[in-house]
Amino acid sequence: MRLRNKPWAVSLVNQHPESVLDRPDPQNTINWTDRFADDTKPLEIEIGSGKGQFITTLAEQHPEKNFVAVELQISAAGMILRSKLAKNLNNLQILCADAANIDCYFAPDSADVLYLNFSDPWPKSRHEKRRLTYKSFLQKYQKIITPHGHLEFKTDNAGLFAYSVQSMNNYGMNFDFVSVDLHNEVHEIIANNIETEYEHKFAAKGNPIYALHADFEVK
Amino acid sequence: MRLRNKPWAVSLVNQHPESVLDRPDPQNTINWTDRFADDTKPLEIEIGSGKGQFITTLAEQHPEKNFVAVELQISAAGMILRSKLAKNLNNLQILCADAANIDCYFAPDSADVLYLNFSDPWPKSRHEKRRLTYKSFLQKYQKIITPHGHLEFKTDNAGLFAYSVQSMNNYGMNFDFVSVDLHNEVHEIIANNIETEYEHKFAAKGNPIYALHADFEVK
Repeated sequence: MRLRNKPWAVSLVNQHPESVLDRPDPQNTINWTDRFADDTKPLEIEIGSGKGQFITTLAEQHPEKNFVAVELQISAAGMILRSKLAKNLNNLQILCADAANIDCYFAPDSADVLYLNFSDPWPKSRHEKRRLTYKSFLQKYQKIITPHGHLEFKTDNAGLFAYSVQSMNNYGMNFDFVSVDLHNEVHEIIANNIETEYEHKFAAKGNPIYALHADFEVK
Repeated sequence: MRLRNKPWAVSLVNQHPESVLDRPDPQNTINWTDRFADDTKPLEIEIGSGKGQFITTLAEQHPEKNFVAVELQISAAGMILRSKLAKNLNNLQILCADAANIDCYFAPDSADVLYLNFSDPWPKSRHEKRRLTYKSFLQKYQKIITPHGHLEFKTDNAGLFAYSVQSMNNYGMNFDFVSVDLHNEVHEIIANNIETEYEHKFAAKGNPIYALHADFEVK
């Protein structure tokens, strides 16, 4: 969802080049090693972080890991940055960039988990290629995810969920966890579930939350 | 769901051995060729037909195909038979038998489509092996479905649907169609959808109907 423009966000982002990479040239490799306080920690990436509630909570709960929030909108990146600074999270970096270039920004086999939370459903057929679970995106994720890593996908959108189940299956991914009513599961996954802003709002209305965890391992 | 015992059903079934095979010995091959008026038609099978609304409607709409309703309960088999006789469906046979022996009752590569509609969810983990989408059942379906055939699965049970998506994916099946809200799809599949008795009842309450079509082709 498009956020209202926040004039303070651009200026805050500009003041913190150590925390935010603002639309870097996809031609240049990003040196993540230099950007994290401790670069030996395993890396996890969220694509489309929005206001950042999910990724900042996760980074706070897991100081033993590094995280990158990928978010195209500068206003949203500014909000994630504000949370990062408030929580003093030195294990979180923000990448303000287009997910279509994700495989340029990260080295092969570099991320253990890739999160897709409440991505834009792009419901029209002619926009299929923009959906973050379209096969060209899956190819890019496969490159950057480690051999034993996986993808975690959540949405409240029935159409995007069904599409993604079929797309990931047809791509040859293996499903590790599936739910069509995540908030009513009796499962360790829901016990550890971190809600995004949207998730909280939609689930509160009683709408089901769909989830799918999958890996690229050839079995 | 277990039906109330219907005393008339056993006697009706016994009067119509030409239409119903009542718990045949799985050791003996069934000669379907002799049981259908025209055995050159393609064959489709429903496992767990209940009262038979789905399969009798389908058989009525498709005189160019042959159908077998597999149903364990004799009372339910009697109700399917009553519909068959009323509609004069010479392209429908009823097999009163356990689905666990399905690969004994049908020849390899003999069925184009196998339907699983609103199967018992067996929600307890210890009953996983009884679910009709457990891998040992999928192995049996794979044997009897033709190389270009497929399986069509519908349920209103969120747990069984999620389980089945994962089970069929992990088995290596390819998904052709997925829906988590079948009755609100804009798709030729819903235009042609035939409701089961349960489906009609649950959908009328506003509950979502889940659907998955999948094949065994190695792509």
